[in-house]
Amino acid sequence: MKALCYHGPKDIRYDDAPDATPQDARAAVVKIDLCAICGSDLHIYHGNGFSADTGYCVGHEAIGEVVEVGRDVRRLRVGDRVMVSGAVGCGDCAPCLAGDVLRCRNGAPQCYGLSHALEGCQAEAVAVPAADFNAAPIPDGVSPEQALMLTDNLPTAYMGVRNADVGPGKTVAVVGLGPIGLMAVECAFVLGASRVYALDMVADRRARAAELGAVALDPSSAFEEIHEATKGRMVDCAVEAVGADVAIDAAIRLAGAGATVSAFGVNLNQEFPYPLGTAFMKGLTFRISGCPVPLYWGELVPLLRDGRLRPERFVSHRVPLADGEAAYRQFDEKTDGALKMLLAN
Amino acid sequence: MKALCYHGPKDIRYDDAPDATPQDARAAVVKIDLCAICGSDLHIYHGNGFSADTGYCVGHEAIGEVVEVGRDVRRLRVGDRVMVSGAVGCGDCAPCLAGDVLRCRNGAPQCYGLSHALEGCQAEAVAVPAADFNAAPIPDGVSPEQALMLTDNLPTAYMGVRNADVGPGKTVAVVGLGPIGLMAVECAFVLGASRVYALDMVADRRARAAELGAVALDPSSAFEEIHEATKGRMVDCAVEAVGADVAIDAAIRLAGAGATVSAFGVNLNQEFPYPLGTAFMKGLTFRISGCPVPLYWGELVPLLRDGRLRPERFVSHRVPLADGEAAYRQFDEKTDGALKMLLAN
Amino acid sequence: MKALCYHGPKDIRYDDAPDATPQDARAAVVKIDLCAICGSDLHIYHGNGFSADTGYCVGHEAIGEVVEVGRDVRRLRVGDRVMVSGAVGCGDCAPCLAGDVLRCRNGAPQCYGLSHALEGCQAEAVAVPAADFNAAPIPDGVSPEQALMLTDNLPTAYMGVRNADVGPGKTVAVVGLGPIGLMAVECAFVLGASRVYALDMVADRRARAAELGAVALDPSSAFEEIHEATKGRMVDCAVEAVGADVAIDAAIRLAGAGATVSAFGVNLNQEFPYPLGTAFMKGLTFRISGCPVPLYWGELVPLLRDGRLRPERFVSHRVPLADGEAAYRQFDEKTDGALKMLLAN
Amino acid sequence: MKALCYHGPKDIRYDDAPDATPQDARAAVVKIDLCAICGSDLHIYHGNGFSADTGYCVGHEAIGEVVEVGRDVRRLRVGDRVMVSGAVGCGDCAPCLAGDVLRCRNGAPQCYGLSHALEGCQAEAVAVPAADFNAAPIPDGVSPEQALMLTDNLPTAYMGVRNADVGPGKTVAVVGLGPIGLMAVECAFVLGASRVYALDMVADRRARAAELGAVALDPSSAFEEIHEATKGRMVDCAVEAVGADVAIDAAIRLAGAGATVSAFGVNLNQEFPYPLGTAFMKGLTFRISGCPVPLYWGELVPLLRDGRLRPERFVSHRVPLADGEAAYRQFDEKTDGALKMLLAN
Repeated sequence: MKALCYHGPKDIRYDDAPDATPQDARAAVVKIDLCAICGSDLHIYHGNGFSADTGYCVGHEAIGEVVEVGRDVRRLRVGDRVMVSGAVGCGDCAPCLAGDVLRCRNGAPQCYGLSHALEGCQAEAVAVPAADFNAAPIPDGVSPEQALMLTDNLPTAYMGVRNADVGPGKTVAVVGLGPIGLMAVECAFVLGASRVYALDMVADRRARAAELGAVALDPSSAFEEIHEATKGRMVDCAVEAVGADVAIDAAIRLAGAGATVSAFGVNLNQEFPYPLGTAFMKGLTFRISGCPVPLYWGELVPLLRDGRLRPERFVSHRVPLADGEAAYRQFDEKTDGALKMLLAN
Repeated sequence: MKALCYHGPKDIRYDDAPDATPQDARAAVVKIDLCAICGSDLHIYHGNGFSADTGYCVGHEAIGEVVEVGRDVRRLRVGDRVMVSGAVGCGDCAPCLAGDVLRCRNGAPQCYGLSHALEGCQAEAVAVPAADFNAAPIPDGVSPEQALMLTDNLPTAYMGVRNADVGPGKTVAVVGLGPIGLMAVECAFVLGASRVYALDMVADRRARAAELGAVALDPSSAFEEIHEATKGRMVDCAVEAVGADVAIDAAIRLAGAGATVSAFGVNLNQEFPYPLGTAFMKGLTFRISGCPVPLYWGELVPLLRDGRLRPERFVSHRVPLADGEAAYRQFDEKTDGALKMLLAN
Repeated sequence: MKALCYHGPKDIRYDDAPDATPQDARAAVVKIDLCAICGSDLHIYHGNGFSADTGYCVGHEAIGEVVEVGRDVRRLRVGDRVMVSGAVGCGDCAPCLAGDVLRCRNGAPQCYGLSHALEGCQAEAVAVPAADFNAAPIPDGVSPEQALMLTDNLPTAYMGVRNADVGPGKTVAVVGLGPIGLMAVECAFVLGASRVYALDMVADRRARAAELGAVALDPSSAFEEIHEATKGRMVDCAVEAVGADVAIDAAIRLAGAGATVSAFGVNLNQEFPYPLGTAFMKGLTFRISGCPVPLYWGELVPLLRDGRLRPERFVSHRVPLADGEAAYRQFDEKTDGALKMLLAN
Repeated sequence: MKALCYHGPKDIRYDDAPDATPQDARAAVVKIDLCAICGSDLHIYHGNGFSADTGYCVGHEAIGEVVEVGRDVRRLRVGDRVMVSGAVGCGDCAPCLAGDVLRCRNGAPQCYGLSHALEGCQAEAVAVPAADFNAAPIPDGVSPEQALMLTDNLPTAYMGVRNADVGPGKTVAVVGLGPIGLMAVECAFVLGASRVYALDMVADRRARAAELGAVALDPSSAFEEIHEATKGRMVDCAVEAVGADVAIDAAIRLAGAGATVSAFGVNLNQEFPYPLGTAFMKGLTFRISGCPVPLYWGELVPLLRDGRLRPERFVSHRVPLADGEAAYRQFDEKTDGALKMLLAN
């Protein structure tokens, strides 16, 4: 089949790859209709991937049609239109059954498209392990593009604001306004935030946040503006949506007494200089986490169906999978208003 | 001074009353700018009041100007524009200091305008006990009408939806669309509800709820419509905003498995026929409560200031205090689009 | 096979019954080692059962050995020693997968031994539907008698105190000291209660509660004693463990301002006279619920394994299944110190 | 008066100091009966204090008798036996009124004995600002030594385990078994922990933890032992009770997927090397905080009164204030079984 494969830094190529084959009797093969490029794919694109492998298919967001099911697949059927969770659990332990694949007891949760261990979704098809648990039929009232957002980005944004303890009447800062950062702004309002400060260096992205009702700020002056507006109390909840030390640092500085800082951008720095003295005086809570995608479907599906969340509005481009190389370049360089980039088969 | 006083069923009269006098050194006198008629005042109007007294001033919602403070009042000053909490605590015990006057340890919490014990607010002035705790300066960014809503109705509506465990993605029913019911609809969306079913027999009130984004339903067909729309799962959260047995009964019937039913309409029936068998099978939570008003100011003030709640839109009429008798009649008969009725000095 | 079957009021008989047969390919047959009589079985014994059927096997607490598995059973194997959840879910919907069978979306949750629809466990064997979800291997470090308590009584007691919002420093009342009531006392301390008042008319049962650290009280004087000891504040959490109107009424009267009342005794009265006025003034929360048994296993298993809960101490008798008729009579009449009655094959 | 004063590294001296004088009309003077040396006082003792001052009185834990009250003190009276909160709030803002002095809106919360700004409690008397809020009568049923533990150590330990999200059935690690670490072990069980691993290099301290029911481990082998006992799942909650980078590092390594790490030892390192990659994969929550002492009194007082917490058992020595120099030396060198050191007037 055809797929986007990683061959080295800035060398993600539309290429031939082995056909998707079910891992075992619990797996299914999904023919992909639509997939997407995630901010974390750019780590791989820049050569800072998660394995030494080359030639593997990349990508971990996809929707499509079930074309093959193993003998032990019970709930999915050939022909079902499904969304494929970017986070993969064993589907056997109690946390996985409840959707919390991050706490999977049978090995760390897996992700597509990081190595040959689990081939990625920016392809014509993908093999889904424990398919009854790691994929689900697209719910009634949810559009294909919304379903695609449910495979990673929207649950990640939602987890990000929940991990920041966002609630009614809270003042929130979101640092970084890529697609997931913008979804985090949207989610913060759904969770009751009274005011959301949205920070990004790119004016276009700030404008998008302002349309959502946020107070958009340039990072260079954000601290002072928030300090003045809050009379020094700063924010209750600070969300980092970038995956960069400088952004985490900013989030911590924006946090007030008793605040929570939540980061969900991938950041593998094992020696981030955490300011314990500041955190002790403020009594900070700091969370960073990957996303147990299916855990949040139960709350997000009604919010999509009833129109309270519309993450599909952050889709900026939709191109054929064959044009994936150019799409990666454009997303990396943020040209032509690139936000969420979709790839269609 | 002049005030509205209770003299018997359907006989609330604009009358002479003794001047407001501070109870002790911790009390203050507030000259009232604006007060309002609450749904619970209609219980008194109909002769089903909370005491055998007559001649007392009625009303428990007011904003105004501090004109006199006792020697032990520390935080309020003469000239401050304040909102007066409809629920009154001792201001000394730990729950009261934290705003939770419902759990006051020095006697049940009190309310203005139920008897001569604490004269009411539909008057030219009111004496406020433990004034540092039972009144507060109108916060910056909050309008006078919004501040008036903070003295009872908005905190009650907000408590009502919180007591129903409303949260992101939940399906909610609000039974009764008087002013507080409509505010409950508004609050339910702020707390993340994906869908709110709003029930009232009055078409105008249903229309107001629909404008807020609710699915407005006539009570006579609501059960069937919700049953069909939810495929029999019914609602997660049912809010009763009337104070009538039939409305509580409806709320319980609309509640699905694991749901919470929250009532805040005053209802003194000591033998309400509660369906234990149904509740056991569904695993229901049932809450009914008066409102510890100041407890919620910390969350509500930013929501008002930042425009997420606009309860002032439910004000339908604003008339001089001297026209209070007619206002009571109109509110009781729901004529001329009567919703929230304000009385101005 | 042999089983205890219901033939009419006070006529539960050791009898011949059809062999346990798997319902479908997801079912398993468990040969029972040990089962037990539950307080709710006495409703059936007295002829106040949940169906008009006769001749069905009773009982819903059992442990035993898997002797047959359907083709679609994945996690259980023939030879496994398992505990059988008294509450039965579909094992397919999201709530069931997370253990919350009470919210099963495919029909109300079921229970063994209420009719011919699902034959009971006081038998030589039982057929377990969706066996991967409704039974589980007895965990390491958990004794057979403890495992038996995990099939219904201990999760019910634990749910009961959690539903009462028991937490650190709380004052708790437990009304009724049968086996589950005594387990509720034990669980209340594990959840941090500072003081537990334990009420029962039977002196022996009060003595058992006192051994657990509770303040044991005769119901006739409990209100006055608690009123005095708490200086009128009464309890924060009131647990009803009987299934009788009078006990629920007592729990409500013992509850203080802001308290939660939790009932788990089966009570099908659809017109229980609930005191709305009292509840409104106190701001009460009232919960009544059957127990989604597997939901609590994750928390209870470590508490058993590490010795913090020892519900097996409430086992008073262990007799052969063939002597079940006499055991029912003894449990009903509370003779010879009858508490938890086990039946062994 | 006489007091222990800081004069330089390892030079805390029993000395003459100015008499305690009320700061303003809301202050009170407390004649001290009993005070104590805290682990954080050793930072000062070692010259790593929180200001450049010298000559100031040290100490922030004390109980005693009110001997003077300002005109605006309402709740305390001369002659009252009181406990003095080690953390000091303004007593005017909403968080302070609710006891959460850490979120005080009028300046960071203060602490006694860190500089001349607020003279310390290891003295014959102390001046208490906003005395109605920063001191409280010793509650009925609480002994003087228990009351002294309520002024800092016990609330800190309790906050520490709550900040670690300890709850029923959780596996907990406590790193460091000084007096507060041992109290944290005690509190963890009250909050429902099934198992507590207790780590310290000092065998005597491990023995004390074992007496409380903990599994006592030497830090050098703790990781391996916990890894094996938990089959690699590690702990749900890790509490750091030392205030050292190496201890925080150990706590993070002991934490399993989805765990919470809570630190309360004073640590002012502004560049602690936090392992983001590890934390991202595990989805860790990390909290570090000083303690808002009065916030926890409401829960701790009943737990003391009813005998569920007995922190006074960790008192190892009680000597006259005049012998304070030697007591500091002994506590620092951990000789002669030094745990909690009390100083009496």
